[in-house]
Amino acid sequence: MAQNAFYAQSGGVTAVINASASGVIEAAREHPHRIGTVFAGRNGILGALREELIDTGKESDSAIAALRSTPGGAFGSCRHKLASLDDNAREYQRLMDVFRAHDIGYFFYNGGGDSQDTAHKVSQLGERLGYPVACIGIPKTVDNDLPLTDTCPGFGSVAKYIAVSVREAALDVASMCETSTKVFILETMGRNAGWIAAAGALAQQSRNDAPHIILLPEVPFDEAAFLAKTQATVDRIGYCVIVVSEGTRYADGRLLADAGTKDAFGHAQLGGVAPQLAELVRERLGLKFHWAVADYLQRAARHLASATDVEQAYAVGRHAVELALAGGNAAMVTIVRLADEPYRWKLGNAPLARVANMERKLPKAFISRDGFGINAAARRYLAPLIGGEDYPRFKNGLPAYVTLKNQTVQKKLPPFEI
Amino acid sequence: MAQNAFYAQSGGVTAVINASASGVIEAAREHPHRIGTVFAGRNGILGALREELIDTGKESDSAIAALRSTPGGAFGSCRHKLASLDDNAREYQRLMDVFRAHDIGYFFYNGGGDSQDTAHKVSQLGERLGYPVACIGIPKTVDNDLPLTDTCPGFGSVAKYIAVSVREAALDVASMCETSTKVFILETMGRNAGWIAAAGALAQQSRNDAPHIILLPEVPFDEAAFLAKTQATVDRIGYCVIVVSEGTRYADGRLLADAGTKDAFGHAQLGGVAPQLAELVRERLGLKFHWAVADYLQRAARHLASATDVEQAYAVGRHAVELALAGGNAAMVTIVRLADEPYRWKLGNAPLARVANMERKLPKAFISRDGFGINAAARRYLAPLIGGEDYPRFKNGLPAYVTLKNQTVQKKLPPFEI
Repeated sequence: MAQNAFYAQSGGVTAVINASASGVIEAAREHPHRIGTVFAGRNGILGALREELIDTGKESDSAIAALRSTPGGAFGSCRHKLASLDDNAREYQRLMDVFRAHDIGYFFYNGGGDSQDTAHKVSQLGERLGYPVACIGIPKTVDNDLPLTDTCPGFGSVAKYIAVSVREAALDVASMCETSTKVFILETMGRNAGWIAAAGALAQQSRNDAPHIILLPEVPFDEAAFLAKTQATVDRIGYCVIVVSEGTRYADGRLLADAGTKDAFGHAQLGGVAPQLAELVRERLGLKFHWAVADYLQRAARHLASATDVEQAYAVGRHAVELALAGGNAAMVTIVRLADEPYRWKLGNAPLARVANMERKLPKAFISRDGFGINAAARRYLAPLIGGEDYPRFKNGLPAYVTLKNQTVQKKLPPFEI
Repeated sequence: MAQNAFYAQSGGVTAVINASASGVIEAAREHPHRIGTVFAGRNGILGALREELIDTGKESDSAIAALRSTPGGAFGSCRHKLASLDDNAREYQRLMDVFRAHDIGYFFYNGGGDSQDTAHKVSQLGERLGYPVACIGIPKTVDNDLPLTDTCPGFGSVAKYIAVSVREAALDVASMCETSTKVFILETMGRNAGWIAAAGALAQQSRNDAPHIILLPEVPFDEAAFLAKTQATVDRIGYCVIVVSEGTRYADGRLLADAGTKDAFGHAQLGGVAPQLAELVRERLGLKFHWAVADYLQRAARHLASATDVEQAYAVGRHAVELALAGGNAAMVTIVRLADEPYRWKLGNAPLARVANMERKLPKAFISRDGFGINAAARRYLAPLIGGEDYPRFKNGLPAYVTLKNQTVQKKLPPFEI
């Protein structure tokens, strides 16, 4: 007898998380005898706690298909992390109450490390609280820092955006460097893991191509070496393009961004490691600079998504449903690499117990000897992830992204204080 | 009898200035009996002064065709502005000497206001210095601030990049605003004219769509009104997306970016009005924010170029050659709008004497009543300029941009001190 499903988007959204939602809902619709309605949580897990359940059955097949090419989180996401059972048993009890009230037997949670941890707890507590639910984690994070999966949906598209932006901006700087800008700095996301900044290296075709320096959170910032390499690059080819991860730190662990703000201004953080580095280049080398901070533009840029990333994001959503229907539980869908070139991959899964709260950083084996870039092994890993283009439909010069009805179902329970 | 031509790229480059170069060279190749070789100046006018003349005859037809979809300045550009004759007669004399030495009878100068001024001076001095040259200006500037032309090649593509980026980032913010970022600020180029920031408004489809606030250099910054509208927007729809032009100023003329840096830090300018505004929002409204500075990414983004812009950039290049062959001189090619919708345009020209050093700002008639956006008239003007997509060829997940040989011809004159 069919039970309903709950799906939620959690943490920072991406250009392709809605493709995963599309995969979940389309797969579920193929099994009406097993899965009734797919309820989407409004603003992630908060939607379950508040009993704000979006009835995706109200959305047309074409609207659900259009999610595949719409960035952001169509149902809303959140940064709410569930506490441990001991600290907050009532939240888990509430989840079970809501699931029971709406006959929800499947829990699909689409997110990063914290979210997989939540999915894991829910899977453990179902039995204990007398209401078993099949819990499947769907990987998502631009940071590419989830363990046990070859890559994380969302990352390939950011990687492509950064690599393309570096190649394009470098052509601009190269044209102007004779009389104008000599140093260009692009700041990327990546608080703890340098995967996104590392992907900038894919813009290189030959030795002198940008980026000339990549600063990674995994490599303690060496100011003297950085300034020397910047000057040497300008002396050799006339300009220097630098990609810096927002999480770049000094040896003592301080973020460059923080450090700069505190030391130089002694007041509130404006954020931005790029302007800090630019100021360093100006003070110490006296070179003309420009800097850019892509921020949300990089993770929302569906117009430049990697076709490989879109396909994988959709596939992990579909597979989560198939896994649940096959009796799977307490597992996260994973992407398994079969070959680098030509790139071949398949889907697998890993126990949530092993995924939860682990963080995969850029391995030493991928970092170049001088620490200012990546090596051939890293390129072999990264290159296929940005492969292919998957342009959204455009109308009047702009991407025609879908907006859902997002109608919630009638509440059956009293309000809940979060 | 055929004479050679000189072509140079001047000032800040764009995603489509090479399309104009492609138009010039392809048109010239169709008239071998009238135009011999097209020499491109290495790094703009400096190439002429230094007698560094790139022989475009060495480039294949396919390479020249590929310029149409390659951003940046393929021959190098520069920010060198020629002084007036009285101040620096020897530079003009040198130009004439170089032109004479290489039998150059056509001068095609591809740039903005300053560059059109240079072209104007060269056209005047040819006669006076005993070596007449047909001088044709080719419009180019992302700032869209040249007079007498409906638009400037380069602008449409930046406008499209900003509008698409606002639509995409807004979907991200809307997904997260319940528990995270409430205010997102995107800084655009535009020191004196607000055309680029204004184009962000094209992202709007309905009343509550982003951008909710646009700050223009043409409108003195009203801090109280800005903070009130930001808070009201967050209260009404949960988040607020702001597009700010780098040239936004206080009533007394100070740039916000400068002001912030001097007042708050009392030391060197890091640049960036976006972080300054973000700090204001944090201090006065206590709202969580994110900000982005697109910088060169916006004007180099050939991957997202406006097909209309590419077509016009190529067309003005071709027309410059046709105009010169028809006996035109001391004129700049212009784009003449025939209809808004469906958009129709043709090519025309205007005397350089009337173009030189004029700056067209966003007219009051295009600015909304509250000064935080644009009106319907502005939309009618802007909408067609971002129309159509013209994707470059991609290879291995990245745009396959062309690199030219850029071989210079043998020098015939002694070196020249600039």
